[in-house]
Amino acid sequence: MRESRRVCNLVRRAAVLVALSMMGVSAGALAAAAPAAGLTSRNAETIAAQLRDAATAGHDVAYSWVSELTTRFGPRPAGSASEQAAAAWAVARLKAFGFDEVHLESFPLTAWVRGNESGELVAPTAQPLTVAALGGSPPTPTGGLEGEVAIFATLADLEAAPRGSLTGRIALVTQRMVRTQNGAGYGAVVPERTEGPRAAAERGAIAFLMRSAGTDSHRLAHAGTTRYVNGHVAIPGFALSNPDADQIERLAALGLAVRVRLASSASYVLAAHSQNVIAEVRGGERPQQVVLLGAHLDSWDLGTGALDDGTGTAIIVAAAKLIRDLPHRPRRTVRVVLFGSEEVAQPDPPEGAFGAHSYADNHRAEFGQHVLAGESDLGADRIYAVTLPPAAAGSEFAQTVLRVLTPIGVLLEKRSLEEAGTDIGPTVEAGVPAFLLAQDATHYFDVHHTADDTLDKIDRTQLDQNVAAWAALVWLAADSDADFRPPPPVPRS
Amino acid sequence: MRESRRVCNLVRRAAVLVALSMMGVSAGALAAAAPAAGLTSRNAETIAAQLRDAATAGHDVAYSWVSELTTRFGPRPAGSASEQAAAAWAVARLKAFGFDEVHLESFPLTAWVRGNESGELVAPTAQPLTVAALGGSPPTPTGGLEGEVAIFATLADLEAAPRGSLTGRIALVTQRMVRTQNGAGYGAVVPERTEGPRAAAERGAIAFLMRSAGTDSHRLAHAGTTRYVNGHVAIPGFALSNPDADQIERLAALGLAVRVRLASSASYVLAAHSQNVIAEVRGGERPQQVVLLGAHLDSWDLGTGALDDGTGTAIIVAAAKLIRDLPHRPRRTVRVVLFGSEEVAQPDPPEGAFGAHSYADNHRAEFGQHVLAGESDLGADRIYAVTLPPAAAGSEFAQTVLRVLTPIGVLLEKRSLEEAGTDIGPTVEAGVPAFLLAQDATHYFDVHHTADDTLDKIDRTQLDQNVAAWAALVWLAADSDADFRPPPPVPRS
Repeated sequence: MRESRRVCNLVRRAAVLVALSMMGVSAGALAAAAPAAGLTSRNAETIAAQLRDAATAGHDVAYSWVSELTTRFGPRPAGSASEQAAAAWAVARLKAFGFDEVHLESFPLTAWVRGNESGELVAPTAQPLTVAALGGSPPTPTGGLEGEVAIFATLADLEAAPRGSLTGRIALVTQRMVRTQNGAGYGAVVPERTEGPRAAAERGAIAFLMRSAGTDSHRLAHAGTTRYVNGHVAIPGFALSNPDADQIERLAALGLAVRVRLASSASYVLAAHSQNVIAEVRGGERPQQVVLLGAHLDSWDLGTGALDDGTGTAIIVAAAKLIRDLPHRPRRTVRVVLFGSEEVAQPDPPEGAFGAHSYADNHRAEFGQHVLAGESDLGADRIYAVTLPPAAAGSEFAQTVLRVLTPIGVLLEKRSLEEAGTDIGPTVEAGVPAFLLAQDATHYFDVHHTADDTLDKIDRTQLDQNVAAWAALVWLAADSDADFRPPPPVPRS
Repeated sequence: MRESRRVCNLVRRAAVLVALSMMGVSAGALAAAAPAAGLTSRNAETIAAQLRDAATAGHDVAYSWVSELTTRFGPRPAGSASEQAAAAWAVARLKAFGFDEVHLESFPLTAWVRGNESGELVAPTAQPLTVAALGGSPPTPTGGLEGEVAIFATLADLEAAPRGSLTGRIALVTQRMVRTQNGAGYGAVVPERTEGPRAAAERGAIAFLMRSAGTDSHRLAHAGTTRYVNGHVAIPGFALSNPDADQIERLAALGLAVRVRLASSASYVLAAHSQNVIAEVRGGERPQQVVLLGAHLDSWDLGTGALDDGTGTAIIVAAAKLIRDLPHRPRRTVRVVLFGSEEVAQPDPPEGAFGAHSYADNHRAEFGQHVLAGESDLGADRIYAVTLPPAAAGSEFAQTVLRVLTPIGVLLEKRSLEEAGTDIGPTVEAGVPAFLLAQDATHYFDVHHTADDTLDKIDRTQLDQNVAAWAALVWLAADSDADFRPPPPVPRS
C-alpha cells in the first residue's frame, strides 16, 4: 500500500475532453480505452496507446537508424575512429530529428586493438581453429605460443588445480552456456572470461582458452572483455568457437594429447577517448525532472554491432522521436544517452563500462531529479515483460502501463532491477529508480559478440514492438507526476 | 512395358521358406510383408526391411565413422597429407569391418592451397570483410590488391558489360541463391563461380567477387572451385559472406563508392597425388556383377567436411557393412568407392572430379558388368525420394523398393539421372545405370563449403534414415537378377 500511495499522482489529473477531441478521440472511444482512474490532463493513457500503435504499424525510424549506423561505420570499438565517427553522425541525426540539447560528452580511456590473431591444432593433426582474443588480452610473442591443452569442465575446476600444475600449458574451460529466455545463461559463464586468464596464469599456464560464451554452433568465436588485475592481464586469453571446443573435447576423448598454437598481435592505445551522445525532449512543465533512456554506441570489433547495441540505440531514439513528434511535450524531460565504451574493461578502477561512469560523474548533481531510468541492450527480439521500481507496485501507474502494454504481449514481472543495465548501472546505484523492459534473449547469444552480429539478424516486427513498448512506457513516466523512489523511512516516535 | 519385361527377373525366384524360418520369419509374417510376386530365394524383401529397420533403430556405424573421420583429420583438401592420412585410416577401418578387396588407387593431380587471405572495405569507411578465395584462384600480389567495386546483379549482367569497362576495378556479382529442397538453387549460381573470374578478367577487372553460393546469413564465406581456362585462372576470385555482400549493396545504395582490398597467398602444388579407396562385399553367385556406391573423402579446407562429404562416406560404408554382416552374401558384389579429389578443378582436361575419372579409367573394362551405381553427396538430411533407372519403371523391382522405403518416408520420383552424382558421373556417362536417393537439401547449403561444415550439424536420426534407405535399396539390387540397362534397339525388319 505504501508504494501505491506514492505513485498514484497520475490518477489525480482529470480528463480534459477538449484536448482529446483535438486528437480525434471520441468520448466513447476514450471510455473503452481508458476506464475511470487512468485519465490525465491530455489523457496520457490514450496517447501512450497511440504511440504504441504508431510504432507497431511499422515506424521506420528504428530500422533506418540501425541500418545506416551499421552500414556506414561497421564495427565501432570503444575509442576507435569508427566509434567517434558514429557519434558525430548520431549528433547530426539527432539534431535533424529536432531533439533538444544534443551534444557530446568526451572522456579518456585505454583502448584495446585486436590486431591479427590465429589458432591451430598442431597435434594430433594440423587443423585450423577459430579463435578470438578476449578484450584486454596482451599479445602473444611474435610467431605465437604453443602448448599442450589441459581441459577443465568449469572455472571452479581450474581454480581447484594446484599452483604450478599448468606450467607451460594452455588451460581450456569447456563449460557450455545454457540457452534461456531471460539471458541468465550468460551470467553463468561470464566469470570464465573475466577470471580465466588470472586463474590460469596463477597455475603456470601460458595462455587461457574458453569455449565461447554463446549458444550457437557456428565457427565464429564470441569476443568479450576479460578483467585487468592490478592494471594488467597476465596471459593471453582466447575464446574458441563452439564447434572447435567440441573438436578438442572429442580428440581428448579419443585419448589423444592436444597441442595448440595461438597467435595475437593485440595492442593497447593508452590515450584514446570515447564519448557519450546526449539528446533530449525537454519537458514542458518540469524539464529538470529526467526520464533517462540508455543504450550504447560502441560495439565489439568482429561484427557490426547490430544487435549489440545498434538496435538498443535505435529503439530508444525511435521511441523518443515518437514522443518528440507529439503535438504536446511531456511534462518531464526525456533524455536519451548513447553511451560510449560499454564493452571493454579498463586497466584502472572503475574497471568497466566507462561511458556509464562518465555520465554518472558529469550528472550526479542532477540525480535527485532523475525520476526513472531504463536501458535497452539485449538485442531486438520482442519485449515480453516489464519490471517497474518496487515503489510502483500495485499503483495506478503500473496498472496503466499494463493496460497499454498487454495488447503487445508484455507481462508485468517482479525481477531484480540490478539487471536493469550496465550503462545506467552507476546511475541506478546512486539511487535513481530503474525499470526493465525485458527482451526475449532466447536467440540473442547466438550472435552476441561475434562477426555474425549484423543487420540481417534483426526482425523488424519485433524491433517495432520494442519501440512501441519504450515509447508508451517512457511517455507515461515522463508525462506523470509519479515518484518512483522508495518512501523515506518512517522515524520511530 | 518394355522396361518391366527386363527387370522382372526378381519375381522369378521362389520363396525358400527354410531360409526364412532360419531368420525367424514366420510364413504368416512373410505373407503380410511381401505379398505374392516379391519373393526371392532368401526373401530379399524381408531382408531389405530388416536392414532398413536395423538402421533406423540406431545403427551407430555411420555416426561413429563421420565423427572419427572429421575429428582425427579435420579438413581433407584434395592432394593434402590430411586427405592421404584419412584414406589410410579408411583402408584400415574397412579391413577391420571385414570388407573384401580393400585397397587404394592413387592418381596424380594439381593441388590448390589456400594460404592466408583477407578482405576489407577501405572506402567509404574501413571495415573487415569475410572472404574465401575460390579454389584454383591465383594469389594476389603480395600486400594485396585494391580497387573500386563494380556491382552486377547477375553473371549475365557481367557478361553484358563492354570489354575494357572494368579496367582496374573489382567485379562483384550479387545474385542470391534460392533455397530449395532438391538443391536446384545451387546449380543456378555455380556458373558465377566457374565463369566469373574469366568474365571479369575479359573486361579488365583485377579481381572477381561473388556473393556466396549459399543460403545462410552468417559471416562465413562459401568456398568452391572456379574453372581453369587454358590451364590458368586469369585473376583472383573470392566469395564474400552473404552479410558482407549485403553490406556492400547497402553502401552502394547510399550512393557511396565502395573500395575493397583483397589479399591471398594461394598456391599450387603441381606434383600432388590423391587416391580412391575401394572396398567390396563380394557377391556370392555373380561376383563380377557390381552395384557401385560412391561418396568422396576429400573436403574443402575451411570446415571439416562433415556434411560434404563425410556423411556420404559414412552412409555408404554403414549400408554396405549392414549387408556385409548378413549371414548370406548378396548374389552380386557391392562395391564402395570413397573417391579422392572431388572438389577441386584441374588445370588440364578432364577439368574436374579427378577421382571420378581415375575410377573410370581404371575400371572401364568392368563397366559392362556394373549393374547399378549411386552416390551420396548432399549432406545427411533425410531421403525423401528415390529415382530408379528408366528401365525399372513399373517393374516388380521398383514396386519392391517402394514397399520397403515407403515406411521411412520415401517417394518414387521421376528425375534426371544426370543429377546422380559427380563422382559416378564418368561411370554413368559410360552407360552404367544410376539410381538417386534424393536427400532433403533445404538446409544443406547453409553450411556447404564453409567453416561451419562440422560434425555438430548432423542430425543422427536423419543420418540413420539415409543408411536405412541405402542398405535396403543396395541389398535389393545386389541380390536380384534385375538388368537396369535400357533394352537394345529393336532392329527394323
